[in-house]
Amino acid sequence: MTTAKKELFIGMDLGGSFIKYAIGDRQGNLLYADKRPSRADQSQDTIFSVIYSIVDDLLMHQERLHGQIVAIGFGSPGSVDFEHGRLIGATPNINDWTDADIRGRLEARYGLPTWVDNDANVMALAEARVGAARGKANVIALTLGTGIGGGILIAGEVYRGSDYAGAELGHMSINFLGPKCNCGNFGCIEQYASAPAMLRLYGQKLHEQNLPVPVELSTFLLFEQVASGQAAAVETVQEVCAYLGYALANLVNIFNPDVIVIGGGVADADIDLMQQIEKVMKQRALPPAVRQVQVKRAELGNRAGQVGAIMLAADAYAAQRQV
Amino acid sequence: MTTAKKELFIGMDLGGSFIKYAIGDRQGNLLYADKRPSRADQSQDTIFSVIYSIVDDLLMHQERLHGQIVAIGFGSPGSVDFEHGRLIGATPNINDWTDADIRGRLEARYGLPTWVDNDANVMALAEARVGAARGKANVIALTLGTGIGGGILIAGEVYRGSDYAGAELGHMSINFLGPKCNCGNFGCIEQYASAPAMLRLYGQKLHEQNLPVPVELSTFLLFEQVASGQAAAVETVQEVCAYLGYALANLVNIFNPDVIVIGGGVADADIDLMQQIEKVMKQRALPPAVRQVQVKRAELGNRAGQVGAIMLAADAYAAQRQV
Repeated sequence: MTTAKKELFIGMDLGGSFIKYAIGDRQGNLLYADKRPSRADQSQDTIFSVIYSIVDDLLMHQERLHGQIVAIGFGSPGSVDFEHGRLIGATPNINDWTDADIRGRLEARYGLPTWVDNDANVMALAEARVGAARGKANVIALTLGTGIGGGILIAGEVYRGSDYAGAELGHMSINFLGPKCNCGNFGCIEQYASAPAMLRLYGQKLHEQNLPVPVELSTFLLFEQVASGQAAAVETVQEVCAYLGYALANLVNIFNPDVIVIGGGVADADIDLMQQIEKVMKQRALPPAVRQVQVKRAELGNRAGQVGAIMLAADAYAAQRQV
Repeated sequence: MTTAKKELFIGMDLGGSFIKYAIGDRQGNLLYADKRPSRADQSQDTIFSVIYSIVDDLLMHQERLHGQIVAIGFGSPGSVDFEHGRLIGATPNINDWTDADIRGRLEARYGLPTWVDNDANVMALAEARVGAARGKANVIALTLGTGIGGGILIAGEVYRGSDYAGAELGHMSINFLGPKCNCGNFGCIEQYASAPAMLRLYGQKLHEQNLPVPVELSTFLLFEQVASGQAAAVETVQEVCAYLGYALANLVNIFNPDVIVIGGGVADADIDLMQQIEKVMKQRALPPAVRQVQVKRAELGNRAGQVGAIMLAADAYAAQRQV
């Protein structure tokens, strides 16, 4: 008696420091996961050589896992042409990643069908399939970190926009008179609630309250001070949660979603930001639109990228086989 | 030789003053159109008696039009449960319209399949099918009037939100410190760019410039003064177009749509607001997201409601027959 080998998927999540990768199944279970430096400051060929060495290694795990790798999913920073699996233009944190033809290169080398998407979309997909928003149709995801990333799922599908340039939720302005953003706009929520924005505000508050401003501020330090009840820290977090609440109220009035998932380093804090954000959101949003909306902390943490890339590949692979 | 009778659809558009109605075909051509007072200040039964008298009359036109009415589409103010064809709660301009069971009543009386949707959704659908955004997949529609209504089409389908309470684009805040809105939020675009907001600003500017403030300000008067080059009027329109540009930049960063359609009384002005709005939008939105977005004036004018209701019925009728 022979049994068909289990279908396995490679998921890769490229970042400015590391590339995380995993082998997983259709259900998003990770059977093997690791990371290595992405060498993002080097040439495109060097980055691809890192990617190739990873895939080469992962393919050797198939047998041990009693499975067969049938497709690759890949999350990348930047705007990604989902249809062709390649970058559209450049992305700030990876110097030589302009127009990188990820699908083209991987399919040519491995003969495995490959799907590529923006990293925030991939994380949103992971949370919607097997994370905080599993089973939900209309999902908004925000990732709070150095910047603020966004992902939108409509009827269970990632919404990418007409030129794959939508879901830039960090660049929704909540005040047209607000601080100038790197993107050229004013008052983007990224200027109020990213990690750097949060620390800038905390530094200001410490200064105003004649407290010493540590040379190296970090969100870790900030949250430690919140836990110990320091006024400047508590006020900072309250203010940032209010800004996020204003942004979420807009997203609720626009999308009337089932769930808003908040992830990223900031959201991983021990303190519960979600309740504070939700309270302000409910004060500001239209009652019929907000009534059933849940605000949830992301569940997949720093595995969301790998899991999402696997789900991306698994979904697309299944759809392709149905045709 | 017999020919099958042409399939015709009734489209109705209920408003606070009038109910507009029409008979049209699958392509959204109106073969007959009229309006009569909606008697919106009276009881729900009275309003339904107006609706019944209209349908009774329209059914008598079938023969003359060599067709057969096969379905009814209906646009109503308020949140509409699309699945059940009835109001969710109340709507401000029609006193006794709470929970009105439009589909239930019409299907029971006429045996014709009936679909009901929010009026702004219906107008967006009309523009996306046969108006300014025809053939486009991802469409945002704004209707500037006493309030600001919104409609969203994703991949050619109306997006309604998880509880049919989404697309409230007039209640996207562009300044969390802005003026208080009727909805309870602050800085909603409706407070900056609806007809009353525009006239409030114009009155202020006239006052500041020591000019007489007419007792009855109207957008008609305002636009007349713009055409004659009055500084206060020109400044008012420039400022309002900038606010709309800020709002559109947000919608572009979120949706990266194909087209944004702007309709409603304000947009019907002879002067070209679209260019001014588009200029500010392009300054503020992310370049990859805005590059191909078109801002267009709605084309269907005050027929959009009837045409959209017909398209709503025609689409749903066709989909139902395919099952």
